[in-house]
Amino acid sequence: MFSIQIDEQLQLKLLQEYDAEELFTVMKGSKESLREWLPFIDSNESAEDTLQFIRSSLKQFSANDGFQTAIVYKGKIVGVIGFHHINWQNKSTSLGYWLSKDYEGLGFMTKSVRKLLDHAFHNLKLKRVEIRAAIANNKSRAIPERLGMTLEGVSRQSEWLYDHFVDHAVYSILVEEWKIRS
Amino acid sequence: MFSIQIDEQLQLKLLQEYDAEELFTVMKGSKESLREWLPFIDSNESAEDTLQFIRSSLKQFSANDGFQTAIVYKGKIVGVIGFHHINWQNKSTSLGYWLSKDYEGLGFMTKSVRKLLDHAFHNLKLKRVEIRAAIANNKSRAIPERLGMTLEGVSRQSEWLYDHFVDHAVYSILVEEWKIRS
Amino acid sequence: MFSIQIDEQLQLKLLQEYDAEELFTVMKGSKESLREWLPFIDSNESAEDTLQFIRSSLKQFSANDGFQTAIVYKGKIVGVIGFHHINWQNKSTSLGYWLSKDYEGLGFMTKSVRKLLDHAFHNLKLKRVEIRAAIANNKSRAIPERLGMTLEGVSRQSEWLYDHFVDHAVYSILVEEWKIRS
Amino acid sequence: MFSIQIDEQLQLKLLQEYDAEELFTVMKGSKESLREWLPFIDSNESAEDTLQFIRSSLKQFSANDGFQTAIVYKGKIVGVIGFHHINWQNKSTSLGYWLSKDYEGLGFMTKSVRKLLDHAFHNLKLKRVEIRAAIANNKSRAIPERLGMTLEGVSRQSEWLYDHFVDHAVYSILVEEWKIRS
Amino acid sequence: MFSIQIDEQLQLKLLQEYDAEELFTVMKGSKESLREWLPFIDSNESAEDTLQFIRSSLKQFSANDGFQTAIVYKGKIVGVIGFHHINWQNKSTSLGYWLSKDYEGLGFMTKSVRKLLDHAFHNLKLKRVEIRAAIANNKSRAIPERLGMTLEGVSRQSEWLYDHFVDHAVYSILVEEWKIRS
Amino acid sequence: MFSIQIDEQLQLKLLQEYDAEELFTVMKGSKESLREWLPFIDSNESAEDTLQFIRSSLKQFSANDGFQTAIVYKGKIVGVIGFHHINWQNKSTSLGYWLSKDYEGLGFMTKSVRKLLDHAFHNLKLKRVEIRAAIANNKSRAIPERLGMTLEGVSRQSEWLYDHFVDHAVYSILVEEWKIRS
Repeated sequence: MFSIQIDEQLQLKLLQEYDAEELFTVMKGSKESLREWLPFIDSNESAEDTLQFIRSSLKQFSANDGFQTAIVYKGKIVGVIGFHHINWQNKSTSLGYWLSKDYEGLGFMTKSVRKLLDHAFHNLKLKRVEIRAAIANNKSRAIPERLGMTLEGVSRQSEWLYDHFVDHAVYSILVEEWKIRS
Repeated sequence: MFSIQIDEQLQLKLLQEYDAEELFTVMKGSKESLREWLPFIDSNESAEDTLQFIRSSLKQFSANDGFQTAIVYKGKIVGVIGFHHINWQNKSTSLGYWLSKDYEGLGFMTKSVRKLLDHAFHNLKLKRVEIRAAIANNKSRAIPERLGMTLEGVSRQSEWLYDHFVDHAVYSILVEEWKIRS
Repeated sequence: MFSIQIDEQLQLKLLQEYDAEELFTVMKGSKESLREWLPFIDSNESAEDTLQFIRSSLKQFSANDGFQTAIVYKGKIVGVIGFHHINWQNKSTSLGYWLSKDYEGLGFMTKSVRKLLDHAFHNLKLKRVEIRAAIANNKSRAIPERLGMTLEGVSRQSEWLYDHFVDHAVYSILVEEWKIRS
Repeated sequence: MFSIQIDEQLQLKLLQEYDAEELFTVMKGSKESLREWLPFIDSNESAEDTLQFIRSSLKQFSANDGFQTAIVYKGKIVGVIGFHHINWQNKSTSLGYWLSKDYEGLGFMTKSVRKLLDHAFHNLKLKRVEIRAAIANNKSRAIPERLGMTLEGVSRQSEWLYDHFVDHAVYSILVEEWKIRS
Repeated sequence: MFSIQIDEQLQLKLLQEYDAEELFTVMKGSKESLREWLPFIDSNESAEDTLQFIRSSLKQFSANDGFQTAIVYKGKIVGVIGFHHINWQNKSTSLGYWLSKDYEGLGFMTKSVRKLLDHAFHNLKLKRVEIRAAIANNKSRAIPERLGMTLEGVSRQSEWLYDHFVDHAVYSILVEEWKIRS
Repeated sequence: MFSIQIDEQLQLKLLQEYDAEELFTVMKGSKESLREWLPFIDSNESAEDTLQFIRSSLKQFSANDGFQTAIVYKGKIVGVIGFHHINWQNKSTSLGYWLSKDYEGLGFMTKSVRKLLDHAFHNLKLKRVEIRAAIANNKSRAIPERLGMTLEGVSRQSEWLYDHFVDHAVYSILVEEWKIRS
């Protein structure tokens, strides 16, 4: 209901409790593809689990520590994007996202990331936004690269995915760079 | 930033911490007229006080217990509207609102209330919404009357306003009534 | 143990943990008649549930936010009466009560309500006390009417009772009215 | 208001917030004599401090961990008595008390202690109650001795009183002993 | 890992979460002998229970309210010793301990108690340390007696052990006494 | 008091409340040199501030989320080292440290880091430890380089230091690498 409008068909809707059922269904529909790169798929077994996730992200929002939004296309949830945490002392945050496999390749994520970068630098007055993606996750890495973010390095064995560690490519963009680009 | 769009120029924006300065300024500008019917004006002496109000309303939101939004006209805050509390057991809530004196008479509040009634009955699946206004507060009472809400009675000496009690006219609308009207 | 004495045989005893067993038994004995107007009967399935209720009412008491007492006749619990919540800003509260079916018609409730009104206006310095009862609950409505409280209106579909909503008759009494009557 | 009746003129009233002013005044009136044996007199400088004490004792009560009552004689507070803490695992507690200097020698404290011992053993089903008093505090020690409690030993340098330590005489009574005596 | 060194082979190691498995195994191995005097053996049925104990003792440590350490001999846990609670107002604490039956009679406990007394008086600046042991628990009572602590009295029916109460011998040592002895 | 022994003269002592005074004095003595790279120097104005830091690090320790230790040389505090946070899901942590200017160049920090790496991989079973240092902070960067840690990249404008941002060199070491080296 509470949304950031991106264009006529696309919006970022703050996740609320009554979204749990729909969000769970979307995640279940893309379970195979999501599980390849997201660590929390196996523990999200019911709408009740998804509700717990939404509740904890609402607490995060009310603590001014980031938020999670649904990417909504023509009224339907097609993915999730949000800030994991906001470091107010150093004025930085990091972005995470996933998209239903049925809506890949349509530019939704690039638009969504661009909108949240704008929010981070313009409304929240942050100075740095980071995006991390597994080295081999080409679809995810394509986003920061398309947006001209800087690859700062590789964080080795950075995340545990069910039965193995993956290395993370670390990208960042600073407020000055964003201003030039906008 | 996170908003419910009403029409091209009007939206209900979930209050966030970075709105404190602007909201305080608006309240200060209408201090005289707001103080006539709102009990919290005298204790709202700085943007820091307004920030505390916003923080407590964000906690309310994250607890799924209602929320407070800024009424935004052409990008500027002109008032506040929200649900005070949600009684999930009995599926009811109550609405409160105020408008800057400079934007009265333009139909903003009627549109805003209508939008939130829609949200209450459609998204939140509530069954009853209440509006209370002081007996002599004609501008405020005009809203539920214009929307065809039912006057249920008068709650005597219901609210303390600085140095005297006021009686409240109690209006309600039920989901069935809303459906017929929409 | 901690009691307000009403007369030689009747007292209002602050509910404590060791009352759970007796209170549960009384509620079970009147289950049929209580269930007609009270929403919490079906979820009170054991003395453990009653203990939870007592614990939460003790928290309410220690937060200066009202309390729940057992109506005790000749040493036996025969009902419950208490203040649901105290609104200190507006100096008001509301009263709720129920009586075991075996002790109806003896004037216990009228005496108990009168005693708590006295406590509200005299000790707590409140200005307004409200009583709500379902429209068709004649026994409950008889109390505020007998005490000369004012019927302020009808709150429609105000409470969910297992499978249907009921409308509430809303009564109130103000401190000035109480002083005249006492 | 919520009281345990001892006799026609004496009662133990659960301390509530609205007692703060009266209790503070009583303590101030006996400041000299109370300060000799009580450690908290110097930090009780206003009715606000007394209110904090009452609030913490209400939390103790609601946690089923003991309570503090005012000793009330002919409607006036003349002292305080209560259980410091209840050890439910070992079914024991300890009693503390003080009396305004103007009401000493009238047997109030002996009656009050006797009543609370009855409460501890009968209602709370405890097995052991302890009373500690400074070795040289003859008035306080007279109570457990009059009640036939057993002197178990001396706890050396047990309590800090502003500028020196005092040794405590430790008395106890067990449920079997109480039953014989009652 | 974080330890107080007693001698080349003996140390007191602050209990941490990763000690749960080893500590549980040691307790299980001495279950028969420990159960005679310790009340918590029957409820310690798995390493998970031991982990809960460790977590609560870490909270105690972080609140500056005492701590629990493993007695470690040649790298192996052979017992536990710690301060139950610190009374900062009166500058006192009490010591509790147990030893695996396989390591009795080697002087470990006397050395451990001596070390913690030193810590209490020297680092924590306390004035009094108490040790309580069941009257008939000769092994436990031998420690304070060997260290010249004073027997202050007998606390009757002081502790519930599964199916009976035991009386406690109460020993103490004051800082002046400790200084003379060291 | 609770320490990890490094060698005869050097140990890592878990910070406790009674260390506040000494630690504050050490920080004040090196204020000029510490302020160049540490963000919290200006807000550490008294032993009371240092006590708050110690308390929060004890909470961190009791939550199994890392800890802070004093580097102690011949019984005197000469610096601080600790884990900022432990990510148990991904089995990683990061190390931070500082040394009094009077004790630089003696190899204390290299020994301390080596000891904590051992603790992280051996006791805590972690898989990855990270060290971050400002690009121009040569003394700090020398430690991970001396230990053969891998420079993974540069985190741009990563930390706010009073009036400017600094870039961080990010180093890591994995458990396999540590095993080879040990």
